[in-house]
Amino acid sequence: MIELSLVGIGTGNPEHLTRAAIRALNDADLILLPRKGSQKAELLELRRLVCADILTRPVTLAEFDLPVRSASGEYLGGVRDWHAAIAQAWAAQITAHLPQGGRVALMVWGDPSLYDSSLRIAARLGAGGMALRVSVVPGITSLSALTAAHGVALNTLGAPVMITTGRQLRDGGWPAGVDSVAVMLDAGSAFEVLDAQGVHIWWGAYLSMPQQVLVAGPLADVGARITALRADLRAEHGWIMDIYLLRR
Amino acid sequence: MIELSLVGIGTGNPEHLTRAAIRALNDADLILLPRKGSQKAELLELRRLVCADILTRPVTLAEFDLPVRSASGEYLGGVRDWHAAIAQAWAAQITAHLPQGGRVALMVWGDPSLYDSSLRIAARLGAGGMALRVSVVPGITSLSALTAAHGVALNTLGAPVMITTGRQLRDGGWPAGVDSVAVMLDAGSAFEVLDAQGVHIWWGAYLSMPQQVLVAGPLADVGARITALRADLRAEHGWIMDIYLLRR
Repeated sequence: MIELSLVGIGTGNPEHLTRAAIRALNDADLILLPRKGSQKAELLELRRLVCADILTRPVTLAEFDLPVRSASGEYLGGVRDWHAAIAQAWAAQITAHLPQGGRVALMVWGDPSLYDSSLRIAARLGAGGMALRVSVVPGITSLSALTAAHGVALNTLGAPVMITTGRQLRDGGWPAGVDSVAVMLDAGSAFEVLDAQGVHIWWGAYLSMPQQVLVAGPLADVGARITALRADLRAEHGWIMDIYLLRR
Repeated sequence: MIELSLVGIGTGNPEHLTRAAIRALNDADLILLPRKGSQKAELLELRRLVCADILTRPVTLAEFDLPVRSASGEYLGGVRDWHAAIAQAWAAQITAHLPQGGRVALMVWGDPSLYDSSLRIAARLGAGGMALRVSVVPGITSLSALTAAHGVALNTLGAPVMITTGRQLRDGGWPAGVDSVAVMLDAGSAFEVLDAQGVHIWWGAYLSMPQQVLVAGPLADVGARITALRADLRAEHGWIMDIYLLRR
């Protein structure tokens, strides 16, 4: 039997780890550390540093190359093929290091519930025949990191909030029925499709990391600046993770 | 100058506190502990226990009675009056305990960004003339606690999620444009207004506390059971906090 713990670690500030996350990582026999290519080497290094900081007993750290998603073809189909390849990569590491079973932990950026595929990939492992029990340790989401950094609430009084993706916003425009929209996974300024009039934006990149950058203001005033800044930061660091909250 | 730290503490499991939250509470000169009446005495006791557990230096704990919201009159206006009264109660405690200024911490259930009014109340203090700097320490949201307990993701692949209230769901039905809806602040089974056909629900009460209760299944099968269970639990404990995720 494999006990797989998906451990939310927040968005890069080791101070945002919970006591439960620290315990789950220390209780593991094996921690999987996916390598996501040289551009995101910083993120792997951060996970290594977290392990060095919080582990109080020897735990096997298994680094492995994460399969790369095919950029061609239909989007959702491509993602599913990618998840199948990742499940195989996890299974290979788990079988190699824990042939008799044991406890495996995977550090999940933010929280496993929000635009993260670890639960779906774990379900593939179970469906593939591995005797598997999955548990989740919740983490600080990037939405909480964004709103904390700006000192703003996600919702207005008693009102709903839409959490969506850059792709959805670009294709569908401002969602119906809400005045607050949080946008994740935006590959580049999907807010440009909106009528900026009367819209406020709170944007953040590298949230809760030392290189954190924040911009807030009327979208009409700061939208172009965010687009330029995002390109500069991506060029400087080789990667970027950013999200934003829009309110009208 | 008053430095007010709004510290997200998650939904009741002290293991869900982050290292930053523990540090912020220890760095405070004063921690405000609102009393919410005898029915929610358990929640005050839990905050006292968290303080006893994590404080490594003497910090003044100021317990005070939280003003009660008027149940009569228009809803939003009533909430605003209530916030004004809470701001006055905070100000009275802060002025009494820290006449020369200092650091104040307030433990916020879940995370200060989501259906919590601490940021709005703090803004009233600032607008009322107090020299105030507000910071936020993000916490585990009840949404993360719910999805972690059920081992389910909030969103489906690349799709949006609506976060809304029981009141909104009851008044407006299923929101447009989404297949996943998370419902908070539901005073009682607003999902009853929906056509249950093809809808799955993941429900949880007292999330991450010892008395946690979970129910999941097709809404048509488990909706009535949740309604009955919720009434029983409320009678047994004197209070209930519950949320749920719906997907169709």
